[in-house]
Amino acid sequence: MEYAVIMAGGSGTRLWPMSRTNRPKQVLPLVEGKSLLQLSYERMLGVVAPERIFVSTARAYAEAVFAALPQLPRENLIGEPVGRDTANAVGLSAALLLKRDPDAVAAVVTADHVIRPVSRFHEAVRAAFGVVGKRPDALVTFGIVPTHGHTGLGYIHKGEPMDAGTANGAYHVLGFKEKPDKATADRYVESARYYWNSGMFVWRCDTVLNELQRHLPESHKAVSRIADAWNTPARQQVLDELYPSLPRISVDFAILEPVSQGKGKAQIVTVEMPVEWLDIGSWPALSETLASDDHDNAVACPLCVLMDSDDNIVVSDDPQRLIAAVGLSDMIVVSTKDVTLVCPKTEAQRVKDLVERVKEKYGDRFV
Amino acid sequence: MEYAVIMAGGSGTRLWPMSRTNRPKQVLPLVEGKSLLQLSYERMLGVVAPERIFVSTARAYAEAVFAALPQLPRENLIGEPVGRDTANAVGLSAALLLKRDPDAVAAVVTADHVIRPVSRFHEAVRAAFGVVGKRPDALVTFGIVPTHGHTGLGYIHKGEPMDAGTANGAYHVLGFKEKPDKATADRYVESARYYWNSGMFVWRCDTVLNELQRHLPESHKAVSRIADAWNTPARQQVLDELYPSLPRISVDFAILEPVSQGKGKAQIVTVEMPVEWLDIGSWPALSETLASDDHDNAVACPLCVLMDSDDNIVVSDDPQRLIAAVGLSDMIVVSTKDVTLVCPKTEAQRVKDLVERVKEKYGDRFV
Repeated sequence: MEYAVIMAGGSGTRLWPMSRTNRPKQVLPLVEGKSLLQLSYERMLGVVAPERIFVSTARAYAEAVFAALPQLPRENLIGEPVGRDTANAVGLSAALLLKRDPDAVAAVVTADHVIRPVSRFHEAVRAAFGVVGKRPDALVTFGIVPTHGHTGLGYIHKGEPMDAGTANGAYHVLGFKEKPDKATADRYVESARYYWNSGMFVWRCDTVLNELQRHLPESHKAVSRIADAWNTPARQQVLDELYPSLPRISVDFAILEPVSQGKGKAQIVTVEMPVEWLDIGSWPALSETLASDDHDNAVACPLCVLMDSDDNIVVSDDPQRLIAAVGLSDMIVVSTKDVTLVCPKTEAQRVKDLVERVKEKYGDRFV
Repeated sequence: MEYAVIMAGGSGTRLWPMSRTNRPKQVLPLVEGKSLLQLSYERMLGVVAPERIFVSTARAYAEAVFAALPQLPRENLIGEPVGRDTANAVGLSAALLLKRDPDAVAAVVTADHVIRPVSRFHEAVRAAFGVVGKRPDALVTFGIVPTHGHTGLGYIHKGEPMDAGTANGAYHVLGFKEKPDKATADRYVESARYYWNSGMFVWRCDTVLNELQRHLPESHKAVSRIADAWNTPARQQVLDELYPSLPRISVDFAILEPVSQGKGKAQIVTVEMPVEWLDIGSWPALSETLASDDHDNAVACPLCVLMDSDDNIVVSDDPQRLIAAVGLSDMIVVSTKDVTLVCPKTEAQRVKDLVERVKEKYGDRFV
């Protein structure tokens, strides 16, 4: 049977002060009043029944997740006591699903992006399910058709098309390339032989677990023991005992790269996902999803007066507060109930550092 | 007897959003926790007994004035139903004081400035009282020693020193010059023959009222009738009937200029006031009174983190709100309980226009 696991473990510090320790980016109503988690959930509803959609997140975010996604059954939340990167999160979800269903196929998807149009996302996921149906040993990645030489992403080097009978748009994979320099990234894009690595996957749970056992045996052992204890009173205790000691490593490094180099029994496949794929990781990225006024201001603010002001991002979640500016350009202004952030757009990536500074000065109060 | 009248009628729109319709600039705790009104009051305490200090302001500001200056006796507030510029405000205060004391001498002072050191202010006011004691026909102005060729101020052209026996630093006046162009202003400063016109005065109330009668007879008639009705139940009615119809004109245009040209019986004198004289009319002006951090940020904000940010002005009156910035320069950020203002320092004078825009969009709610 087919399942979905939405990975929603990140905090989204660069969207501070909207994102806070107990209110991570994924649950914020950032996109037309909907959260990225809700958008991801709704996307999955097109291909997987609701009772088979799971959310993997930090235990600390559990209540925020249920608040943002009230329709999620409580038993469908996989709460990690601490973050241990994607190899372990993926391993735990696979072990849990496999307990329930020996033929479980999982679509592991992110909740960090706006993906448009959703119909193409559905087609790609269905194609991937098709690939796994015919090739049980496939670990399917999704390749986003790149629009520019992004240096902050991993790339998938695509090989020959899969043989006839397998889904259209499915390719063998020659290898993975981590964050290249700009010249290399540009070359990748021009060659039309590379995809952006979406960080989303489809696989049989037994296949990915076998590879986890091969490449990261400790993690395999731990997630298997946790899965055994999951439906017993010992769940919490076993989780807290085993999970924190696991190594922090991504599924790409731990499994996909070695398998792509022939070290393993599975095979890596990539399915093209020809969508617009916006990583909502920072204020400028988010602003691409917002309506712009005549002066290219991206505004999501109930009360706002921008006079002779251009190219700003103004976000507020306070229905009583007015944000007013005159002669302002290329600036980010974000207001929440207890914090006002002001910074030039060019400094958007440094909001993360600013949060550290705020933490040094005021402890946990504002982070 | 000697009296003081603090003129506190202005709204201070360029200090929005701290200044609001019912909370004018003069009552805001802008300077080390004190209001300009309080500073002006405390300055006058050095030369005039508290029961003889009056405040002239808009009736709408009355409660804000009493809140900012709880020690002010209620009968010492002169509330105008509408603003009719300084000729009428000055005339009304003179008429009221004259009713009470036929020998009343008034020091008419502003509440728009920070004046340092206060001791020199006291010396100048005492000198002016001395001049009026010897020359009952004197209308004494105060001349601020100019530090640069300011084009937004009026200038006093000083003549010969007053004769021996009159206070040191008192001069005859050759004339008044309204806001000159830059070259002229620079020439004035270099010549050392001109002062900035402080807009503060000392005079006998009968002397100034005689000149008002001569140059603005309608106003004289009105303020006399209002003064007659002041301590009767008809005060409000007479005020509301007569005051709004008076012409808007400054005491400089209405009285001082014609008298300086020989059109009158009084004589104009100027007393030098060698002080630092900061007009707290805009955010950059206010920032000169604030403490600066190592990066030349002027900060009056209970909770604030400025990372790699220079030359900003950050003001907040909310003890619960954090203002945070990274990589920000030359910006004004002001936060009140319901408004956040962001604008470049270079746009500080346009805050006034912004307030108009806010009014167009949201009515009286935020102004």
